[in-house]
Amino acid sequence: MANAPVQRMSQLMAKTLRDDPADAEVLSHKLLVRAGYVRRTAAGVWTWLPLGKKVLANVERVVREEMDAIGAQEVLLPALLPKEPYEATGRWDEYGPELFRLKDRKGGDYLLGPTHEEIFTLIVKDQASSYKDLPVILYQIQTKFRDEARPRAGILRGREFLMKDSYSFDTEDEGLAQSYALHRQAYQKVFERLGLDYRICAATAGAMGGSKSEEFLAPAGAGEDTFADCPACDFAANTEAITFELKPVDADGVPVLEEIPTPDTPTIETLAAHLGVQASATLKNLLVKVDGEIVAVGVPGDREVDMGKVEAHFAPAVVEMVTEADFAGRPDLVRGYVGPQGLGEKVTYIADPRVAPGTAWITGANKPGTHARNVVAGRDFEVGEYVDVVVVQEGDPCPNCGTGLKLDRAIEIGHIFQLGRKYADALKLDVLGRHGKPVRVTMGSYGIGVSRAVAALAEQSADDKGLCWPAEVAPADVHVVAAGKALQTELALDVSEKLRAAGLRVLVDDRAGVSPGVKFTDSELIGVPKILVAGRRSAEGVLELKDRRTGEREELTVDEAIARLTL
Amino acid sequence: MANAPVQRMSQLMAKTLRDDPADAEVLSHKLLVRAGYVRRTAAGVWTWLPLGKKVLANVERVVREEMDAIGAQEVLLPALLPKEPYEATGRWDEYGPELFRLKDRKGGDYLLGPTHEEIFTLIVKDQASSYKDLPVILYQIQTKFRDEARPRAGILRGREFLMKDSYSFDTEDEGLAQSYALHRQAYQKVFERLGLDYRICAATAGAMGGSKSEEFLAPAGAGEDTFADCPACDFAANTEAITFELKPVDADGVPVLEEIPTPDTPTIETLAAHLGVQASATLKNLLVKVDGEIVAVGVPGDREVDMGKVEAHFAPAVVEMVTEADFAGRPDLVRGYVGPQGLGEKVTYIADPRVAPGTAWITGANKPGTHARNVVAGRDFEVGEYVDVVVVQEGDPCPNCGTGLKLDRAIEIGHIFQLGRKYADALKLDVLGRHGKPVRVTMGSYGIGVSRAVAALAEQSADDKGLCWPAEVAPADVHVVAAGKALQTELALDVSEKLRAAGLRVLVDDRAGVSPGVKFTDSELIGVPKILVAGRRSAEGVLELKDRRTGEREELTVDEAIARLTL
Repeated sequence: MANAPVQRMSQLMAKTLRDDPADAEVLSHKLLVRAGYVRRTAAGVWTWLPLGKKVLANVERVVREEMDAIGAQEVLLPALLPKEPYEATGRWDEYGPELFRLKDRKGGDYLLGPTHEEIFTLIVKDQASSYKDLPVILYQIQTKFRDEARPRAGILRGREFLMKDSYSFDTEDEGLAQSYALHRQAYQKVFERLGLDYRICAATAGAMGGSKSEEFLAPAGAGEDTFADCPACDFAANTEAITFELKPVDADGVPVLEEIPTPDTPTIETLAAHLGVQASATLKNLLVKVDGEIVAVGVPGDREVDMGKVEAHFAPAVVEMVTEADFAGRPDLVRGYVGPQGLGEKVTYIADPRVAPGTAWITGANKPGTHARNVVAGRDFEVGEYVDVVVVQEGDPCPNCGTGLKLDRAIEIGHIFQLGRKYADALKLDVLGRHGKPVRVTMGSYGIGVSRAVAALAEQSADDKGLCWPAEVAPADVHVVAAGKALQTELALDVSEKLRAAGLRVLVDDRAGVSPGVKFTDSELIGVPKILVAGRRSAEGVLELKDRRTGEREELTVDEAIARLTL
Repeated sequence: MANAPVQRMSQLMAKTLRDDPADAEVLSHKLLVRAGYVRRTAAGVWTWLPLGKKVLANVERVVREEMDAIGAQEVLLPALLPKEPYEATGRWDEYGPELFRLKDRKGGDYLLGPTHEEIFTLIVKDQASSYKDLPVILYQIQTKFRDEARPRAGILRGREFLMKDSYSFDTEDEGLAQSYALHRQAYQKVFERLGLDYRICAATAGAMGGSKSEEFLAPAGAGEDTFADCPACDFAANTEAITFELKPVDADGVPVLEEIPTPDTPTIETLAAHLGVQASATLKNLLVKVDGEIVAVGVPGDREVDMGKVEAHFAPAVVEMVTEADFAGRPDLVRGYVGPQGLGEKVTYIADPRVAPGTAWITGANKPGTHARNVVAGRDFEVGEYVDVVVVQEGDPCPNCGTGLKLDRAIEIGHIFQLGRKYADALKLDVLGRHGKPVRVTMGSYGIGVSRAVAALAEQSADDKGLCWPAEVAPADVHVVAAGKALQTELALDVSEKLRAAGLRVLVDDRAGVSPGVKFTDSELIGVPKILVAGRRSAEGVLELKDRRTGEREELTVDEAIARLTL
């Protein structure tokens, strides 16, 4: 990127805006639009304007260098993909409405790639025939398409976005672990170089299948993920990945089940108030429909059910809430008074591990206006399956050391998976093994949200004046401001050219008819790390160098400024 | 790209093939697949393997540098585009089945961008408000989608391909001419740096609209375009763009029209043989359907009708050939004996300028088994409109100097257009002019087929041994071959590392169990410009440096080899 021409703001296609866009809710969305980095083209579909494209290219370069450094080979796959391989793995259907599907002129079925496991698997099937051809890591930096139900937050969750996806291919589990470790290290280097604050968190595998999986989460208020951080040990995990251990207790001393009249207490709040107990002493049984069949979910009365966890458990089945009509057809399920007693004979009954065998509860008695107390799991009712389905709360015990967890919002910027043999099985990817017999290949899949990382960087580095990029990704090394008339502009252009010749990437505000005040405001909004102002002392050849982040200023001659900036 | 890690062929995902792929017809397709640069993913949809991706990235870099050098600003637009702007310009319909159309989960209409005139126009409408914001040139290097009816020739005509498209915005015609000239110069630099043999040819504007337009054509047998080159002057043009001047002649001495019995002569060949005349003395009248209406096209009997020219003339109407059924419904049109006499009263009648007023012809008499001679244009029949619709032939007169033209096949690698105000009119792109009134913006659109340039380079540089890349685009600077056992491999890896440290991009064939002969064949197929062999004299530290193109060899020590290669 060195020695790119000086970019003059008088010619730059990047109009800054004074006001936040009406539809913007999160900081990065507001600032990237206001500073002229991106513009919306359609819902969840964005145009990268010149400044934005430079930042994106910088992130891309860092990712590429670190992937190359672990011996990964760059390829480029198409976005337009045939249906067949995705049918073979089941993802053509499993992906649901998130997959963009289309037909070509001959009526053939195609999709726009959301990720490329299938095609990479087929490439290796075509290219590798022996264990000697492995291990291999292939990657691409490519545009992906996902028809998000609710595209939001600007480039943070778009329907078309730039991603680095890579895939490792090994014959042995140890090889996969090694490829995974290489990625983990490379990702750490990438995010450190980018200047991102991040945590590596245990993650659920989600719809990708497979076993070991970690997420790289960048703490930010705009994030869509919640992660739990232990203040006492090094545990950190996406809250979706935290499961509560099942610990049966002794119920010997619990009196027999007793029904109690509780009129007008169809909710946990009304019930707890009526009985004068904590909500945590009660057991609530939420009804959902899984592929149309009713399923009951038992959790302590003070806990929220995490529908994401329920969906993950039943995937690829579709999970919906029950409706009035569903109750109407099931008089055996008494709305507001459903209890677990005998429930497993009527519907599938799953419960949270907190409803462990031996625990006693106040819960519905399956009669209107009636609850029961001393209802003991394993004695008075059976749980079909224990599944951790509750929302993790601040203060929940760390699974590692028991200390109360701290919760934070974060943006998922990277994800590494040990996929195992799911795709190799579906597409029959074998190579000739060391002993002359075919060996099924084991795979890993690894992603970095390149465009999303730009949003995360904007979120984390911005201050109340605007964007404030780390040097490695900034759209320029220095923003020269001509704060005045012809004299200042001449000096600004002159010093810009000298800085460019010294290898710096330079943005110069040479706009005529724009006041110094507007230029200063714009320079802070745009967020180049160093701002060099040709102002009052231009006649003497003295400039002011300002650090965008600290606001520190010093007066320097042209030569001093060049020396300081090219240190 | 300097100091990228040494790429070992033992780990490289690029299997070479001994045989041409069964479906490959053209040289670049065969070689790029055989040498492991690309693999087909679906019809017209390709994967770039590591070596191919490197060449593609090199072409991209050269294009980017030359676009930056003319002050063009890089942006990145989405591929997934909303219907509305394309409806406003009419292209949503005009593009026909070549446009990939799809719906999102809410039923909204989208397309995959084939080119981006509309969206760029809207960006400038959003960003520029005054003549002071112009001129501006914006560009992107981006994946494009076109549902070609007959994807062919590997990456030469794909349905998903990489393109540099740029757009200029000016308030004055002179500004547009200047932006056009800047592109013309930049393209010359790009293609010269890439090492491509090319010609700049006058071109038709095709479906893009607008006025001045030139194509950059790379002569190659696999090309889909035919261009005419004048051996005497500097005229060069796509044959589609060559039009014959209408020159009326004096018909005073031509006898009156005479009907002659010509049984069994429904074709020009049978007629000319029957009468003992040249086919060029006859006039044939081809019938086509334009949006369902019959149109007659008159051309000299020895000329072929260029259906592309007919389609361009009637665009966006659909042109089809007439069928038996069409004749059955029109007894006034006598199949095989259609003459132009009174034809204009029955159907629309257009003719080639070679059928100029005053020219006399032998042609159909509109009666079975009967022709007429001395049929004079303008005397015995009227031409509704003169349109140049014939295929240009070798030896046709140069429109500039009259010398017989030479014809060649070529690949279109670049195209520059002065679009004018077509898109600005449709999308109402105005800026405030110098005199305070709104001024409509005038545009240019300019493309380079980035992936197609790779195919053109492969076509032009290949020899009978394989690919043979120009240095600027080659996937490596040097291909080191370990031709032997452990000793040779050790030397090869050692010298590779030294070359890398010296800033060269190195591919090393360190494959175990592969014979030197296979490695030599592969190195010639892969086509890196310099091949450095660690062979028989490895123990002495002597290598053989071979020039891939000339085959020249010389023996060198390690230090000499490094010095020679880093010259």
